[in-house]
Amino acid sequence: MKFVGYHHHGRRQVGVLVGDGSHLVSLTDALPAGALPDGAGLTELIERWDILGGKLDLDSASPIAVATVTLTAPIPTPRRNIFCVGRNYREHAEEFGRSGYDATGGANNQPDAPVVFTKPPSAVIGPGAAIDPHPGVTGEVDYEAELGVIIGRGGRGITAESALDHVWGYTIINDVTARDLQKSHKQWFLGKALDTFCPMGPYAATADEVGAGPLDVRCTVNGEVRQEASTRDLIFDIPTIIATLSAGITLQPGDVIATGTPAGVGIGFTPPRFLTSGDRVQITITGLGTLTNHVS
Amino acid sequence: MKFVGYHHHGRRQVGVLVGDGSHLVSLTDALPAGALPDGAGLTELIERWDILGGKLDLDSASPIAVATVTLTAPIPTPRRNIFCVGRNYREHAEEFGRSGYDATGGANNQPDAPVVFTKPPSAVIGPGAAIDPHPGVTGEVDYEAELGVIIGRGGRGITAESALDHVWGYTIINDVTARDLQKSHKQWFLGKALDTFCPMGPYAATADEVGAGPLDVRCTVNGEVRQEASTRDLIFDIPTIIATLSAGITLQPGDVIATGTPAGVGIGFTPPRFLTSGDRVQITITGLGTLTNHVS
Repeated sequence: MKFVGYHHHGRRQVGVLVGDGSHLVSLTDALPAGALPDGAGLTELIERWDILGGKLDLDSASPIAVATVTLTAPIPTPRRNIFCVGRNYREHAEEFGRSGYDATGGANNQPDAPVVFTKPPSAVIGPGAAIDPHPGVTGEVDYEAELGVIIGRGGRGITAESALDHVWGYTIINDVTARDLQKSHKQWFLGKALDTFCPMGPYAATADEVGAGPLDVRCTVNGEVRQEASTRDLIFDIPTIIATLSAGITLQPGDVIATGTPAGVGIGFTPPRFLTSGDRVQITITGLGTLTNHVS
Repeated sequence: MKFVGYHHHGRRQVGVLVGDGSHLVSLTDALPAGALPDGAGLTELIERWDILGGKLDLDSASPIAVATVTLTAPIPTPRRNIFCVGRNYREHAEEFGRSGYDATGGANNQPDAPVVFTKPPSAVIGPGAAIDPHPGVTGEVDYEAELGVIIGRGGRGITAESALDHVWGYTIINDVTARDLQKSHKQWFLGKALDTFCPMGPYAATADEVGAGPLDVRCTVNGEVRQEASTRDLIFDIPTIIATLSAGITLQPGDVIATGTPAGVGIGFTPPRFLTSGDRVQITITGLGTLTNHVS
């Protein structure tokens, strides 16, 4: 199943895409009355997925045309910062090292262990929303196409072998980055955390919908292909990332993990090709649709 | 005023310390009925502080002895990760550089701009609670005594000149760190984020209660003084930190910012003196009491 966030009657809602994806059924209409508390989002549904996942009735409710609502991110306000893995594709680690922007780079810039930082919930925007270029704060805004993993069943000490049992689903994340801030502040958080710097969507798909095979990740800027890779090329795969995080951090339902970006970001070019006002970034991942955002 | 979190009748509550601090009045009893939604925490009070701050009636309610309740952190579940500033006291930046544990260190290890990372809400524990040493995950647990700033009025683009108008109050943070993870994962987040690695408290004090002068920060381990400094020695002061963060990130009421730790952490010693089971860490800051935690 594919879930979207949207605004309707001035309230945040969750919808399930039906048919060819041009229509949605509201979660409220698809579930028995009182199944979820008023104002519940996708995180609350994921928490109760074992009970409610099988109770979704998409046939009895009246579908709404997606074109008539404003989509938000599928999880517009995560309960804590989004976990992000950096330097997780070999060729990107190399281009990042060459660029001189990585204050934490080693000799060959290939990580021996997952490099983890976060993006705050306040940075999340939905499909179609504008990325703020923050003039005066940064002059070097860059894109990073990433597969986002959404945790279902939480836990600590999750083994790599059982890790995929803890994945509820997937979405697309654009890990927008202010390269100048990422460099000058040493730790990457600040350059990753600016308002609007975490486009997410267009929808969240359950794991069974996406399947277990490697996924193609593709990013275009104004129609020009910049990033094209397969999640087969992740240095640390999803089970390894989940095992590493959960060794000491109890993972929670609705946690979002951005798994890293492939080669082809703006600083991979000489000279760098940063985003500017009016640019349109589109990220497509197998089974997860296309996330489109423009720079305001 | 000084606010604590506590458990009572199986529910999380907020209390206001009264008299010599040995008693508290519950927020529910101190406010007019319905002033805050059921289950509201300190963040919800801070959001409505302009309206409710002056309505707290501590004289009509029945005080409860603090000794009869279990204290939690004053903000036990922040709405997003805690912002943390690293390498923000000159002598600590030097000891950290010498230790070889900083994957992001420059030549003199003195930062040109605030170094910012985060700790997740799930790491927060209260006064008296045990720090989990996470055997098998880390063998190098270290303490970091820090002044925590609590944001009142949010905003973006806050100037250093007006920054203190946005501070609601202060608390103590122990930025517990797994040094081996901090080093091997390059970005510091993972080593800072383990469950129980963010002791906070024993209370949150309003800014007027603490005053505008520099504060003394002192940390002992099993009674031995390890850290002793004044916030006068911060490289980047509180107004600068708030201006830097809010340049691109909208600050929110209840945000917590840990401002960095002085010299004297475990890796400052040769050989390093890491925490082990049974150790008792006590942090005292002027006007903010003493935060005591032991390692389980």
